[in-house]
Amino acid sequence: MTANASSKTPVTLLGLGAMGTALARTWLAAGHPLTVWNRTPARADALVGEGAKASGGVAEAVAASTLVVVCLLDDASVGEALVGVDLDGKDLVNLTTTTPAQARARAEWAAERGARYLDGGIMAVPPMVGVPEAGGYVFYSGAAGLFEEHRETLAVPVGTRYVGADAGHAALHDVALLSGMYGMFAGVHHAFALLRKEDIDPVGFAPLLADWLAAMAQGVHLTADQLRSGDYTKGVVSSLGMQVAGTPTFLATAEQQGVSTELLRPYFDLMARRLAEADGDEDLTGVVELLVR
Amino acid sequence: MTANASSKTPVTLLGLGAMGTALARTWLAAGHPLTVWNRTPARADALVGEGAKASGGVAEAVAASTLVVVCLLDDASVGEALVGVDLDGKDLVNLTTTTPAQARARAEWAAERGARYLDGGIMAVPPMVGVPEAGGYVFYSGAAGLFEEHRETLAVPVGTRYVGADAGHAALHDVALLSGMYGMFAGVHHAFALLRKEDIDPVGFAPLLADWLAAMAQGVHLTADQLRSGDYTKGVVSSLGMQVAGTPTFLATAEQQGVSTELLRPYFDLMARRLAEADGDEDLTGVVELLVR
Repeated sequence: MTANASSKTPVTLLGLGAMGTALARTWLAAGHPLTVWNRTPARADALVGEGAKASGGVAEAVAASTLVVVCLLDDASVGEALVGVDLDGKDLVNLTTTTPAQARARAEWAAERGARYLDGGIMAVPPMVGVPEAGGYVFYSGAAGLFEEHRETLAVPVGTRYVGADAGHAALHDVALLSGMYGMFAGVHHAFALLRKEDIDPVGFAPLLADWLAAMAQGVHLTADQLRSGDYTKGVVSSLGMQVAGTPTFLATAEQQGVSTELLRPYFDLMARRLAEADGDEDLTGVVELLVR
Repeated sequence: MTANASSKTPVTLLGLGAMGTALARTWLAAGHPLTVWNRTPARADALVGEGAKASGGVAEAVAASTLVVVCLLDDASVGEALVGVDLDGKDLVNLTTTTPAQARARAEWAAERGARYLDGGIMAVPPMVGVPEAGGYVFYSGAAGLFEEHRETLAVPVGTRYVGADAGHAALHDVALLSGMYGMFAGVHHAFALLRKEDIDPVGFAPLLADWLAAMAQGVHLTADQLRSGDYTKGVVSSLGMQVAGTPTFLATAEQQGVSTELLRPYFDLMARRLAEADGDEDLTGVVELLVR
């Protein structure tokens, strides 16, 4: 126990996977009284040695603090863990990865049980927790006042970004950023696959690819401007028409290198579809419209 | 004409599209004697006013300089433009976008005609030419000595990166980086599509996405290390097994937001295929193996 433990907000944490355990350590280190619960109780042992209080059951853990942080496997785990538990008067902060719809439903479920609710989407992996320079953070959405009340405590493990009153918006931001990342990973893996049969060291190639992608990621700002204004010809540096004309070279190169085109084709097909129905002087941004039903 | 024109290497440039014209201006500004040719002669008019010499025909343009830079629409245009032209003793630098196989064939074609050959892949758009702080550059491959002889002249418009003796490697690096970029764009457009029906300003979202992608692009270095060592479990921060378990949330969110999953599914399918045959503690890197036949 630290000397100033009594001045820090007590926290109850449900779920001690890799992420939960990392979060727990930062609250303990910062002097927050911490009560933990995990379905497999043994995962709490090390944290108890560091000052956490382990609870025999969820109800007991929830009763220990007003602020209850949940970091479980999925939304179903949250419902199962909290079935029959008294949440009246609690401030529930749900960091479990869910869809926006699940987060909204969980917010209603919490309100019906007399709890206030914040939803969180974690943009970090466990090694980034407690390491401010790693740049990890959590998106939060729900009542702004509730977020402000707990902002200081929630900012202990990683940074915070409040993204609005809609409980589903933290999850939506989380999913949107991670979906963007998987697209980038698909491109990265295709790029490395192209070199696979050549005498090209992937470690020598990596900084070229990393720097190029980091530079091109700044194009996101122009895309956003175009989406807001609805004018997809604004600020174009390489037109849809020119880029569609270039796609056969990318597909032919993949074929020559013995690399499947399955990761490239769906996007190129959308580019071609957009070109067929729109202005060739546009940017690629019109593809967004083809994705939305 | 600038005072020191006679000390600078004369350049002949074939092709005055947006890129060729941008290249031409930088050589003129740097005092290189410049001879230009374009299929549509009128495109040379402005450059002639800036000091370029326009040629009536390709043969005459090629005869004017030892160093001949080609920046045409595609590989077929190069063959058509130079048919019957005497290339003996010329240093041909081909910046036309091609596949690696086309670059290699063009190198042999040049050698048969008594010319030395360098191939280039341009990692820049015309507004970046002549603007060093914009960070554009050209990949070059072919004989190292030939590149060294012309490095200074070639570095006038944008930076240079020499990537080896294989004439196809400049094009391969070019295509690999651009393929990676299109993967990222696919992810970016999916991300923006997810927000389309929500009251979320794309311009407010853009810095979150741009910064996240730029940070995640640094993961390329770990991927390269894993590919070189063949050990895909090295340095893993989020395992293949955990990430495959997360994919239903991304797909369900897309469905909820009325967004097609066509850009996400191919990569998620490859992740699942890899998990079915490999160690769940691996990183995502094994997907590269599934792409290569």
